[in-house]
Amino acid sequence: MKLTFSPASPFARKVRIAAIELGLIDSIELVPATVVPGQPNEEYSRITPLKKLPVLILDNGEVVLDSYVIVEYLDELAGGGKLIPASGEARWKVKSDHSLLQGMLDSMLLCRYEKMVRPEPLRWQAWADDHWNRAWAGMARFEANAEALARPFDIVQIGLTCVLGYADFRFADCGWRKAYPKLDAFHDKVLTRPSVKVSLPPPA
Amino acid sequence: MKLTFSPASPFARKVRIAAIELGLIDSIELVPATVVPGQPNEEYSRITPLKKLPVLILDNGEVVLDSYVIVEYLDELAGGGKLIPASGEARWKVKSDHSLLQGMLDSMLLCRYEKMVRPEPLRWQAWADDHWNRAWAGMARFEANAEALARPFDIVQIGLTCVLGYADFRFADCGWRKAYPKLDAFHDKVLTRPSVKVSLPPPA
Repeated sequence: MKLTFSPASPFARKVRIAAIELGLIDSIELVPATVVPGQPNEEYSRITPLKKLPVLILDNGEVVLDSYVIVEYLDELAGGGKLIPASGEARWKVKSDHSLLQGMLDSMLLCRYEKMVRPEPLRWQAWADDHWNRAWAGMARFEANAEALARPFDIVQIGLTCVLGYADFRFADCGWRKAYPKLDAFHDKVLTRPSVKVSLPPPA
Repeated sequence: MKLTFSPASPFARKVRIAAIELGLIDSIELVPATVVPGQPNEEYSRITPLKKLPVLILDNGEVVLDSYVIVEYLDELAGGGKLIPASGEARWKVKSDHSLLQGMLDSMLLCRYEKMVRPEPLRWQAWADDHWNRAWAGMARFEANAEALARPFDIVQIGLTCVLGYADFRFADCGWRKAYPKLDAFHDKVLTRPSVKVSLPPPA
């Protein structure tokens, strides 16, 4: 299998961590790709019209997207129920928590594009603030979610790891460690995992 | 159960159609909500920090998000495997096709915000074009995907219905019917379903 990949993408990082945790990383070739909003990339758009990282390309040529569905796919490949509960109430709690993290990452990327990629005279502060507030309020939810922080390493903890790593990478001065001490302790704890350490974003 | 809802939201429409098709609509109270990018809505942000429609609020107070996970939840409630295949290769094909549609809707909304919600002097044409191109290229994929158009009514066909309905609602002059005659025939066919007809967006 091939995974389109950039070390800067928090969505690609999520899949990479999941693949390592599931023991599948050796069967996946990471294929570097670069996509920039506002700039065409015709070659990559032929793989996915959404022009987003990552996608998983199976050996038969089928394409699996998005990052969440790829993790579901890999989880099933590894026997099922490893990173996402296979049934019961916990399944919906984990899936909903993950959707929240996915939306937080979407908002953080929109915020980053607004502040760094969009031509400076065209930036709209209220848009950037709105999206940052969504991510920030989402972090507050997880700070108060002792159960999510205490579970075995799962897709929620992987997603949260990617949110916090992306905050360090692109919003280094946002002060999340001070505002959210439980998330700080969580992040210190998960950093002991090789999957988390090896996938840290590059220096900004 | 309660579903936060707006007749203008294609994501809320997807859940509404699914609930009708699954025979669950009578157990769901639609709760009107309005969210606008760049404008705070503190009451709604307490329900979900992402400030997005729809979310499903269960009778025990738990919140299920996003629209995709809600459809998965309702599908399981209705017995499972009705709108999303329960297993096998078809499962990943349907999930990936749905992710593509979800991303197309995200891009269409970003395009709409850029053209209508953002203050006029701050608009960036390359951003709007990039996101429109993703949706448009996505439509081309489905125009060529005879298998997806011919399947029984499932989450992919529901998602595609919402993409095309949203194109009519917000991009009435985009010309998708002429460019994509198979999607036009598909849309005519699904419009015979009460779930699709009752959930059409209001006049723009």
